[in-house]
Amino acid sequence: MDLNLMRGLSVSTDSKIVLLVLDGLGGLPMHPFDRTELEAADTPNLDALAARSDLGLSRPVAAGVSPGSGPGHLALFGYDPLKYEVGRGVLSALGVGFELGENDLAARINFATKDESGRISDRRAGRISTEEATKLIDLLNQKLNLAGVEVFLIHEKEHRAVAIFRGSGLSDVLSDSDPQRVNLKPLPVEPMNGDAKAEKSSELANDFIKQANAILAGYHPANTVLLRGFGMYPALPKFDETYKLRAAAIAGYPMYKGLARLVGMEVLEESEGIAGEFQTLEENWGSYDFFFIHIKATDAAGEDGDFRRKVAVIEEVDVLIPDLLALGPAVLAVTGDHATPAKMKNHSWHRVPFLLHSEYTLPTASSFGERVCAGGSLGVFVAEEIMGLLMGHALKLNRYGA
Amino acid sequence: MDLNLMRGLSVSTDSKIVLLVLDGLGGLPMHPFDRTELEAADTPNLDALAARSDLGLSRPVAAGVSPGSGPGHLALFGYDPLKYEVGRGVLSALGVGFELGENDLAARINFATKDESGRISDRRAGRISTEEATKLIDLLNQKLNLAGVEVFLIHEKEHRAVAIFRGSGLSDVLSDSDPQRVNLKPLPVEPMNGDAKAEKSSELANDFIKQANAILAGYHPANTVLLRGFGMYPALPKFDETYKLRAAAIAGYPMYKGLARLVGMEVLEESEGIAGEFQTLEENWGSYDFFFIHIKATDAAGEDGDFRRKVAVIEEVDVLIPDLLALGPAVLAVTGDHATPAKMKNHSWHRVPFLLHSEYTLPTASSFGERVCAGGSLGVFVAEEIMGLLMGHALKLNRYGA
Repeated sequence: MDLNLMRGLSVSTDSKIVLLVLDGLGGLPMHPFDRTELEAADTPNLDALAARSDLGLSRPVAAGVSPGSGPGHLALFGYDPLKYEVGRGVLSALGVGFELGENDLAARINFATKDESGRISDRRAGRISTEEATKLIDLLNQKLNLAGVEVFLIHEKEHRAVAIFRGSGLSDVLSDSDPQRVNLKPLPVEPMNGDAKAEKSSELANDFIKQANAILAGYHPANTVLLRGFGMYPALPKFDETYKLRAAAIAGYPMYKGLARLVGMEVLEESEGIAGEFQTLEENWGSYDFFFIHIKATDAAGEDGDFRRKVAVIEEVDVLIPDLLALGPAVLAVTGDHATPAKMKNHSWHRVPFLLHSEYTLPTASSFGERVCAGGSLGVFVAEEIMGLLMGHALKLNRYGA
Repeated sequence: MDLNLMRGLSVSTDSKIVLLVLDGLGGLPMHPFDRTELEAADTPNLDALAARSDLGLSRPVAAGVSPGSGPGHLALFGYDPLKYEVGRGVLSALGVGFELGENDLAARINFATKDESGRISDRRAGRISTEEATKLIDLLNQKLNLAGVEVFLIHEKEHRAVAIFRGSGLSDVLSDSDPQRVNLKPLPVEPMNGDAKAEKSSELANDFIKQANAILAGYHPANTVLLRGFGMYPALPKFDETYKLRAAAIAGYPMYKGLARLVGMEVLEESEGIAGEFQTLEENWGSYDFFFIHIKATDAAGEDGDFRRKVAVIEEVDVLIPDLLALGPAVLAVTGDHATPAKMKNHSWHRVPFLLHSEYTLPTASSFGERVCAGGSLGVFVAEEIMGLLMGHALKLNRYGA
């Protein structure tokens, strides 16, 4: 999206936009002749909505490229994810409410399990409990001692935490230690340019890992940490300036809260679960004109390869659609930030189903699924265009040119 | 395709990719309510494959623009054909195995027939035999004498040859002498910028044509030459660096071999005919992880306006598909570099049918043809994205961002 164009054309109005993101919504059939998760789900409300909506498939980042959650969401918010790079560490730091400063270097930590040969046998340490992880984080915070910098370790959820290195002369041009697959040894963190700051920061990170290994040596399954997504605070154009929107985010997972804060959304305190998120929407309906609602459970089910559970989450969301529509949004879009097919147990590059309901649509089907979206009136388009479509359908953009 | 992105994300794996290019595959119905060549062809194997594949239509170069073979293939290989310009002469020179140097200027030569008024009556001199053309090339090599440069004339096939001008201060910013249609006079070669090198090179080329006309004056039908596709050696990023692929090319026609060499593919010695090309693939299966197979006969039939022959070539390829699949490619894509509808007897700008088979597809049809591709899950996309799709489906790209 051309953000300057948006800035020039956008106007503030009373109409309300809801962007409902089912993380990793896009799917695949488990066998060539079957249906995808979304096609298989029993979704009478989304189907009825599709019959009054524009449909299409959106492509995040680039052909064949599987996006991480950061780039996937930046594209949904209208930012070119190849231009605006945000390390996952930054998102995590913001997500846990850490006040990131300009000199801070943030990184994502996973507790992981390594076997006797030093290879990673579980990249998530069996998804250890929050209780157990919190204890280990406290232990690390107590014992770690890095030369010349302060280190803050903050627990996120289960096996996930974030590290912030505070000191002068740091750089985020660093490779990950996470080998991305099991049965491989962790990688050394390496500087990705010749800069002295990157060199120094990589030494710091490797020293951190070495100390953490020593501290965790007696524990199981969390006997090591993997670092990835190094990032320093990025300057992103803000939602209120670009789109003139008073934007609110409702998300159950810290990283998505962090991402929303980064683009200037206010993060609302949500009640428990998917129904809780919709309840939070209803309670705050009068105070904002843009709502980003993030549902994590679709992605989690996809990553676990659990086709049935992903279907069930989609059906759980479907039940809540009538109450959402009753609030009277001018625009309701339902989509994902990327595909996470249960078949692949991973994020994928596949194009993502997109539904946009407003008073001004050209419906092409009476159900919601990947294949009807392929034949929809929006065709296949890049995900960065979504914000423009939402703004247009909400009548929040002035005409371009006389 | 963003080649830097590919370079950053690509990983070498054992999975194998086959890119099967039927040159000029895209077609049109001869009459509005008829079928295209591909739709009319009896292709049980491609149809069965389509039912397990992603389908789409690819757009080379730009809307409404008919690509030459060079730009058409560069786009297939992931290179922006508007950024990476390669004169056809360069491809021809590489195709005949000529060791092109940095100071060499290459151009394509067609033997042609001009009538008494100086107009071109046949742009291919009746497709004169290789035997006859070779004699004329020898004669020209013997008698041509250009001031300050060496000239090498090398015969290609039938009416086609390549000229290489070797000397200092040459430029390829030159227009063609080929008027592209019959009953027009050949055009003078003109410099296309104000550069002194282009000026000098145009004079050289026009002097070359003048001398050739004098030498060929007594011959028929090859009584003149047309020059086109001036080019100097271009620096293209190589396949092994960009995609980390050990790539091999199987092509029966010198120009496509040359193009494959230019991007760093190894050119395999192929057996005769289409079946011979597939046999070469089988014999070399273990030694590479990317195969580009080029079938010229579809384009040749289209250029001759021979709808039935183009259908027959497609059917000949179809028969060989099961053996290819039996080799077990992770990804098999079947497409063209551009359309050559028999109806137009020429390359055209039309979008090109594209089929991609892998384990991770979202099939939308049970046949392969232009119109089912238009409704496919890949939609209409730019041809440069094809390499990204192949790499993604072969699981040869890391995730982008965390």
